[in-house]
Amino acid sequence: MGERVVVALGGNALGDTLPEQMRAVQQTARAIADLIEDGHEVVITHGNGPQVGMIQNAMAGLTRLDPQRYIPCPLSVCVAMSQGYIGYDLQNALREELLNRGIRRGVATVLTQVEVDPADPAFDAPSKPIGAFMTREEAQRLVRERGYRVMEDAGRGFRRVVASPRPQAIVEIDTIAALVDSDHVVVACGGGGIPVFRTGAHHLKGAAAVIDKDFAASCLARQLGAGWLILLTAVDRVALHFGTPQAQWLSTLSPGEAQRYIEAGEFAPGSMLPKVQAAVEFVRSGPGRRALITHLEKARQGIAGRTGTLICENA
Amino acid sequence: MGERVVVALGGNALGDTLPEQMRAVQQTARAIADLIEDGHEVVITHGNGPQVGMIQNAMAGLTRLDPQRYIPCPLSVCVAMSQGYIGYDLQNALREELLNRGIRRGVATVLTQVEVDPADPAFDAPSKPIGAFMTREEAQRLVRERGYRVMEDAGRGFRRVVASPRPQAIVEIDTIAALVDSDHVVVACGGGGIPVFRTGAHHLKGAAAVIDKDFAASCLARQLGAGWLILLTAVDRVALHFGTPQAQWLSTLSPGEAQRYIEAGEFAPGSMLPKVQAAVEFVRSGPGRRALITHLEKARQGIAGRTGTLICENA
Repeated sequence: MGERVVVALGGNALGDTLPEQMRAVQQTARAIADLIEDGHEVVITHGNGPQVGMIQNAMAGLTRLDPQRYIPCPLSVCVAMSQGYIGYDLQNALREELLNRGIRRGVATVLTQVEVDPADPAFDAPSKPIGAFMTREEAQRLVRERGYRVMEDAGRGFRRVVASPRPQAIVEIDTIAALVDSDHVVVACGGGGIPVFRTGAHHLKGAAAVIDKDFAASCLARQLGAGWLILLTAVDRVALHFGTPQAQWLSTLSPGEAQRYIEAGEFAPGSMLPKVQAAVEFVRSGPGRRALITHLEKARQGIAGRTGTLICENA
Repeated sequence: MGERVVVALGGNALGDTLPEQMRAVQQTARAIADLIEDGHEVVITHGNGPQVGMIQNAMAGLTRLDPQRYIPCPLSVCVAMSQGYIGYDLQNALREELLNRGIRRGVATVLTQVEVDPADPAFDAPSKPIGAFMTREEAQRLVRERGYRVMEDAGRGFRRVVASPRPQAIVEIDTIAALVDSDHVVVACGGGGIPVFRTGAHHLKGAAAVIDKDFAASCLARQLGAGWLILLTAVDRVALHFGTPQAQWLSTLSPGEAQRYIEAGEFAPGSMLPKVQAAVEFVRSGPGRRALITHLEKARQGIAGRTGTLICENA
């Protein structure tokens, strides 16, 4: 019986450079095609850390060359560009893999904006480093001239830091739902989505922020009424005491247990922590909702209960 | 009575830089919203000349800085990025304008690939200059190392030239049709679409080419079964003897007349010529199909027959 599934792809699903991406998306496409072949409705979100950093650096180079002509490219615009950059390769790899299996299905990338709250406490404590390393002087100039926040990264120089607020709503949710309903495989909320504030009556304004793709995927899954949220990563299962000889791999986890482990500091910020948090948030959002955290190559076995960490009530 | 309309936006609809674009799309959004308010189903295509040039320059800067890490970014990937860059602003301006008029309608940008034919004669005679000016030495190195074609632009240096092949088919046509059928306003085929070849069983490979947006719009309109193709530009009507005191503005034009004027060299290549050609191609593709060439701000009056050049059989 097919389920509606939102899949979030981690960094290992895409690679850091264009040649890496063109190779990585082929493996990624096989994992997603497995789910589609098994009859599931699949919507895909993905990260964009290295890619949006690359685009930001490229655009910053233009501004340095010709500051009169090229204003610094807002981060929201760089995210929009990264959705094109990644979506193009990802949708093509998936389209090809499906056709090679005899599955004719529309595959589409939807440019997606995600609303964030200007009162989100994340804006008071920007913590996500983006873009290239700078000298102290370059960093101070950006602070002075553009109000950027910067952070020193031990010994390697300064980087811009931006907020990582929680997603509130997917602006293009009706578009994504219409495509899923018409039997499409959809790539959406790339890079966590283009972060926007609602201002004025109906205006959306780009926010200098990046949204965590796992939280964006959870938000999307809730708004789509999905039954499953699958967070694909580089390990088979969530572990306690990860990286120690006492590592204990978990096959199931209830939201309550997960919450206790989160509070005990079991999961690494920026890595497993947001995945477990996003999974808990999704599972608690409605009855019967399940989340799975597993290795990119094992999505099919995971949803069938043969590997991965299943997060659900009554786990 | 509402019609299905494909609208192609020229350069004046977008501006050359990001601040210009943010202003220009507001005016553009009003013109499009007029058509939607009058009950038409609208799909929008747009050019990307300055934008894809900017992105190509930005990405080339990265390659110069770190050639080991960043291979030259293929033109197809730059087009994909430009669809995100432009679509984001355009869909937002349109969404806001519609909501300000009390019209709730999904507005979506679909990343779009357009198939071209590797045997297209355009590939033997690349003629479309793209990207920054280079010295003779820089140009010769690209010819030697990457097989680029280059052209000297009188006195201003050398530029890369690429082919501008005719669009054969819109890869994401089912996606666009599904969204139109579910009452969406769709931005598609941005920059004429990401040019791809079909290779192997099901593989699509990016082509080093740019597709004219007017021809892409004509192809899209045919495949969508649209009744109208509207090509918006900077003048109210098509003229004979354009730019002379004898200029004669045309309110109607049959495909046969248009063909004779084309052969007589009445229309400027890269400007009015592709518009008239795209219009003729569309009108001849099926009974009852009509094309309109008019000023960006006059789409509503044009479709109502009060301005513009109407191209149709029995004109």
